[in-house]
Amino acid sequence: MNWDPSPYPWPEPYRAAACFSVDVDATAPHLWQHRDGLPATLAALEHRQYGMRRGLARMVTMLERVGITGTFFVPGVVAEENPELLPGLLERNQEIALHGYFHELVGDISDAQFTDALERSLELFVAQTGLRPTGFRSPAWEMTPHMLRELARLDLWDSSLMGEDVPYNIGGVTELPVRWDNDDAIFFKFLGAGDRPPQSDHEVAKQWCEDAISQTDDGCLFMLTVHDWISGRTNRVAMLEELLKTLSERPHVWIASCDALAKYHATLEGRLDVSLDDIRPIEGRV
Amino acid sequence: MNWDPSPYPWPEPYRAAACFSVDVDATAPHLWQHRDGLPATLAALEHRQYGMRRGLARMVTMLERVGITGTFFVPGVVAEENPELLPGLLERNQEIALHGYFHELVGDISDAQFTDALERSLELFVAQTGLRPTGFRSPAWEMTPHMLRELARLDLWDSSLMGEDVPYNIGGVTELPVRWDNDDAIFFKFLGAGDRPPQSDHEVAKQWCEDAISQTDDGCLFMLTVHDWISGRTNRVAMLEELLKTLSERPHVWIASCDALAKYHATLEGRLDVSLDDIRPIEGRV
Amino acid sequence: MNWDPSPYPWPEPYRAAACFSVDVDATAPHLWQHRDGLPATLAALEHRQYGMRRGLARMVTMLERVGITGTFFVPGVVAEENPELLPGLLERNQEIALHGYFHELVGDISDAQFTDALERSLELFVAQTGLRPTGFRSPAWEMTPHMLRELARLDLWDSSLMGEDVPYNIGGVTELPVRWDNDDAIFFKFLGAGDRPPQSDHEVAKQWCEDAISQTDDGCLFMLTVHDWISGRTNRVAMLEELLKTLSERPHVWIASCDALAKYHATLEGRLDVSLDDIRPIEGRV
Amino acid sequence: MNWDPSPYPWPEPYRAAACFSVDVDATAPHLWQHRDGLPATLAALEHRQYGMRRGLARMVTMLERVGITGTFFVPGVVAEENPELLPGLLERNQEIALHGYFHELVGDISDAQFTDALERSLELFVAQTGLRPTGFRSPAWEMTPHMLRELARLDLWDSSLMGEDVPYNIGGVTELPVRWDNDDAIFFKFLGAGDRPPQSDHEVAKQWCEDAISQTDDGCLFMLTVHDWISGRTNRVAMLEELLKTLSERPHVWIASCDALAKYHATLEGRLDVSLDDIRPIEGRV
Repeated sequence: MNWDPSPYPWPEPYRAAACFSVDVDATAPHLWQHRDGLPATLAALEHRQYGMRRGLARMVTMLERVGITGTFFVPGVVAEENPELLPGLLERNQEIALHGYFHELVGDISDAQFTDALERSLELFVAQTGLRPTGFRSPAWEMTPHMLRELARLDLWDSSLMGEDVPYNIGGVTELPVRWDNDDAIFFKFLGAGDRPPQSDHEVAKQWCEDAISQTDDGCLFMLTVHDWISGRTNRVAMLEELLKTLSERPHVWIASCDALAKYHATLEGRLDVSLDDIRPIEGRV
Repeated sequence: MNWDPSPYPWPEPYRAAACFSVDVDATAPHLWQHRDGLPATLAALEHRQYGMRRGLARMVTMLERVGITGTFFVPGVVAEENPELLPGLLERNQEIALHGYFHELVGDISDAQFTDALERSLELFVAQTGLRPTGFRSPAWEMTPHMLRELARLDLWDSSLMGEDVPYNIGGVTELPVRWDNDDAIFFKFLGAGDRPPQSDHEVAKQWCEDAISQTDDGCLFMLTVHDWISGRTNRVAMLEELLKTLSERPHVWIASCDALAKYHATLEGRLDVSLDDIRPIEGRV
Repeated sequence: MNWDPSPYPWPEPYRAAACFSVDVDATAPHLWQHRDGLPATLAALEHRQYGMRRGLARMVTMLERVGITGTFFVPGVVAEENPELLPGLLERNQEIALHGYFHELVGDISDAQFTDALERSLELFVAQTGLRPTGFRSPAWEMTPHMLRELARLDLWDSSLMGEDVPYNIGGVTELPVRWDNDDAIFFKFLGAGDRPPQSDHEVAKQWCEDAISQTDDGCLFMLTVHDWISGRTNRVAMLEELLKTLSERPHVWIASCDALAKYHATLEGRLDVSLDDIRPIEGRV
Repeated sequence: MNWDPSPYPWPEPYRAAACFSVDVDATAPHLWQHRDGLPATLAALEHRQYGMRRGLARMVTMLERVGITGTFFVPGVVAEENPELLPGLLERNQEIALHGYFHELVGDISDAQFTDALERSLELFVAQTGLRPTGFRSPAWEMTPHMLRELARLDLWDSSLMGEDVPYNIGGVTELPVRWDNDDAIFFKFLGAGDRPPQSDHEVAKQWCEDAISQTDDGCLFMLTVHDWISGRTNRVAMLEELLKTLSERPHVWIASCDALAKYHATLEGRLDVSLDDIRPIEGRV
C-alpha cells in the first residue's frame, strides 16, 4: 500500500502524457484460433480484412492530418502477408513495434514458443525495414515472468500491463501501462452470434474523452488502443480525430509515441520497480 | 495493405449510396433450429409471427410513404407459408431476393444441401412471381467458397460479407457489403432467458444516423438491415422513417435497392476483386 | 402475411389502451429452481423478499395516487406465504390473476403438473378472497397447446404471448399480448455473478415512455410488466408514476386492467383468431 | 406482505442516511480463485495492484477533502501483505471492517473454514491496529445461517444482504443492507475476454446520483460500495466526489459510517427482525 504515490516527473513543460496505439491484428487472431485447420467460412476473414483494405489507411491519414505519431503493434504474419505495411507506416512518420507472430495467446503456448515467435517477428521487422524494433505488446495483454525476462534480454520495452497509470518498471522492463477501459475491441468488436452488441460510438467517445481529460489533468499517461479493422470505420476515425484534437489543445499534455515514452522513462530513477520475486508472494499459503 | 484505396465512382450526381434491406426471417430460424422436431412451446413462434401479422405491413407502408424501394430477403419457407408475401412486395414497388429455404445456417449444412436450398428457393420465387430473383443474402451472413461458386454459376449477386464499405467482387460475385453495426437483430432481438436485453431504440437510431451521415459523407455504401418481427414495432418504424428522411434530404446520396447497386457495379472495372485463391493464403503454415 | 391488418376497435372515445401489470414473483422462482433442496445461502431469498417488505406497498400506494388499477399476477405459494396479499390488493382496488403455483417453468413440468398447479392456485385464490380469478399469465411467458386448452376449459384469459400488439384469440383463449421490451426483469434483474448489470433506470424509462406514446398513437395496447422486488425500489416507482401520468394525460388512451380488456375483447367479432392446428404447419417438413 | 412498512426513525434532525463503503479486495479474489496454484500469468495480478499503488490513496484523499468517513472492508490477506493499510486508514479518520481472510467465496468453503477465516482476520486486525473490528461484509455478498450465528456470537454487525432499504435485524445480527445496483464492480469490473465491457462512468454516476436522491428523499439508507482497484481511477474518484458533495448538501441526510449506523440501530426497538426459522419456511414442500 502506497499512501503517497509520487507524481510522475514528465519532461518540461509537460505535466501529463497521451499515446495513440494501434494493435494491427487484421486476420492474425483468426489464423491463430484455427491453427489446426482453417474452416471454409469466409465471414470473419473478410470482416478482418477491412483494415488492410480501408481502415488503416483512413486512420493513418487522420494521424498525419493532426500531426501525431502513433505506435502500431503488428503481428509477424500480418507484416509478412502485407509487405508494404511496415515500410508504409515508417514513411508516414508512424512507429512500429512487435505483437507476436500469429497473435499467439499466452495461455496457448510454451515459453519456448513465445521466444521463437518473438525472435521470428523481430527478424522479420529488421528484414522488412532495416530497423530493429524497440518494443512489444502482448496479444490479449497477458504476460508471464518468462516473457518479461525475454523482453529484458532483448532490450525491449513492454506495453501490456495495468499496474500503474504512468510508466513503471517490472522485472527489469519498462512498462507503458494500458487499460481495458481505453481499448476499442471490448466495446466494438462483433464477429457474430454470441458476441456482445457494440456500444454506441458516441457513448464510448464521450467516455474516452472524459478519461483523457481526467487522466491528463491528474498527471497520468492516457494510453488509447484501437484496432485496424474495428476503428478504421468512418465514424470512429472521425471521433478519434476529435479526441486527438482535444488532447492537442492541452499544452500540458505530451502526446508521445511509446518509444519516446520508454526512452524518457529510462532516464528516470526512483520510479516504481516491481520485482518478479515480490509479485506473487503468497503462493502456496492459502 | 492498400495505402491508397480508391474512392468508389458512384453514378453522377451521387457521391455515396444507401440501401434499406430487410431479412424477412419470420419463423424460419425457429423451424431450422428445431428441424429434428418442434417443441410444444409457442412463445417464440408467436413472437416471430408478429412481422407477418403487423410489422412488415407497417414497414412497407412507411417505405411507400417516403418513396423508397427496399430489398427484402425472404427464406423459401416464409414465402411458401405466406403465398401473398412476394407478390405483395412487388406490387408495392419493393424488391425481393433469396435468403435460403429454411434459413439454413451454413455451419449446419453440406455444400449439396446449400445448393439444393438455393435452387428450391429460386424455383419457388419464379413460381410465385413469374420473375427470377437476381440476388442472395446468406442466413446469419456466413459464406464459403462453394456458396460463392454457386452464386456465380446462377448469376446472383451477394450481400453477406464485410470486407469493404463499397461494392466489390469476390470469387467472381458482386458483393454488396453488410455491417453488423447496422443490423437491428444484434441490438434488439430478445427471445427469452439467456438473451441480452435490447438496447434503447433511440440510442441505436442515433448511432445508425451518425453512421449513415459519416459513411455517405465519406463516399461509402450505407447498408442497413432490419427484420420483420423485430423492427416492425411502432417506435422502430418511426425511427427508421426519420433515418430514411435524413438520407433523402442529402442530394449526394443515391438511395438504391440492392439490385440497382449490383447492376451499376457490374458496369465498373478495376474495383477490388478478391480471388478465392488469395483469401486463405497461409493455411497450414502456422 | 396480412397486408392490411385492421385497426382494433377500442371502445369510444378511446383509440388505444394501456395496462400496468405486476408479476408478484417474490421468492417463488428461487423455490422452484431449488425444488430438490434449498441451499443454505440467503442472499437471493433476502433480495427477493424486498418486494413483500417494502416494494409492493410502495408500488400500490403509487397506483392509488394516480388512480389506476393494475393487474397483479401472483404465484400460489406467494399468496400462501403472504395471506394478506390477495385481500390487500383487492381492498386497494387492484386486480389479481393466476401465475402458477411455484412459478413452475413450462419446460420443467408435464401437462398434468401444469393442470395441477393451475387448479391448486385457482382454489387458493377462491379460498383467500371468495372470488374466482378470471385470468392467467405463464411464468417466464411460455405457453403450450395443452396450457391453452386448460385455460379455455376453465374460462380464463391469458397474458403471455407476443403475436400481436392488440388483444387477439389463440386456441379459443383471449390473449392480452405482452412484450419483452416492456418488462422490467430483462433490464434490471441482477442476482449475482453471471447476471448482466442492470440498465440505467432513466434509460429504460425513456424507452418505455417512447414505446407507450408510439404504441398508443398507433392504436395498440401498451402492456407494461414489472416485478415486486425489482421495480419496488424508490427511483423505479417514481419513474413508473411519471410514465403513468404521461399516459393519463392522453385522453385517447384507455388505461384498463387485464380483466377489463379481456371482457371488452370478448364482445368483438372478426379479430385475429389463431388456430392451434395452423400454428405449427410445417412440422416434419424440413 | 407488509402493507404499511414503518418509516425508519433516523436520529434528529435526519430523515435518511448515506454510507460510503469500500471493499478493498486488491488481489485477494485472484489468490482465492487460484488457491490450488497460481498461474504464471501476471495481467490480473498487476491490474488488481492498481488500488494499492494509486487508487486507494486517491480515494481516501478525496474522502478527507469532503470530510467523510468511509467504511473499508479488508480481507485478511490484503492487510497482511500491506501492513501499513489498516493503520493508515485509521490515521486518516476512516473505518475498517472484516471481509474474510482470502475473500473466500461462501459456496467454496465449509462452516468451519468460514469460522476460521473470520477469527484469523479478526485477530490480525487486532494485532495490526490494537482495536477490535465491529463489523463484517461477506465476499460476494452471500450469507448462511451459520455465518449469521457466528457474527452474533462475536457481536459483529453485517453488511451483505438486500432484504430492506434501511437497517434491520436478521438472525440476531444488525444488517446494514447493500444493493447490487449501487456497487461499482458489476458495472466496471473487466479482467479480460469473457467479461462484459464496462458501462460509461457518467451513465453509472447519473444512475447512482438519482438513486441517492430518490432513496434519501424516501427515508432510506443509500449504501454505495466501490472497490480500490476499480474506482480508484481518476475519473471515477472525481465522479464519486461529485456524488458525495451532492449528498453533503442535503441537510436531512445523515452521512454515516457503517459502525455509526449499527450503533444507532442497536438503540431502536420494533424494527424488522427476520428469524432464521422463518426465512426458509417452505423447504421440502414443493
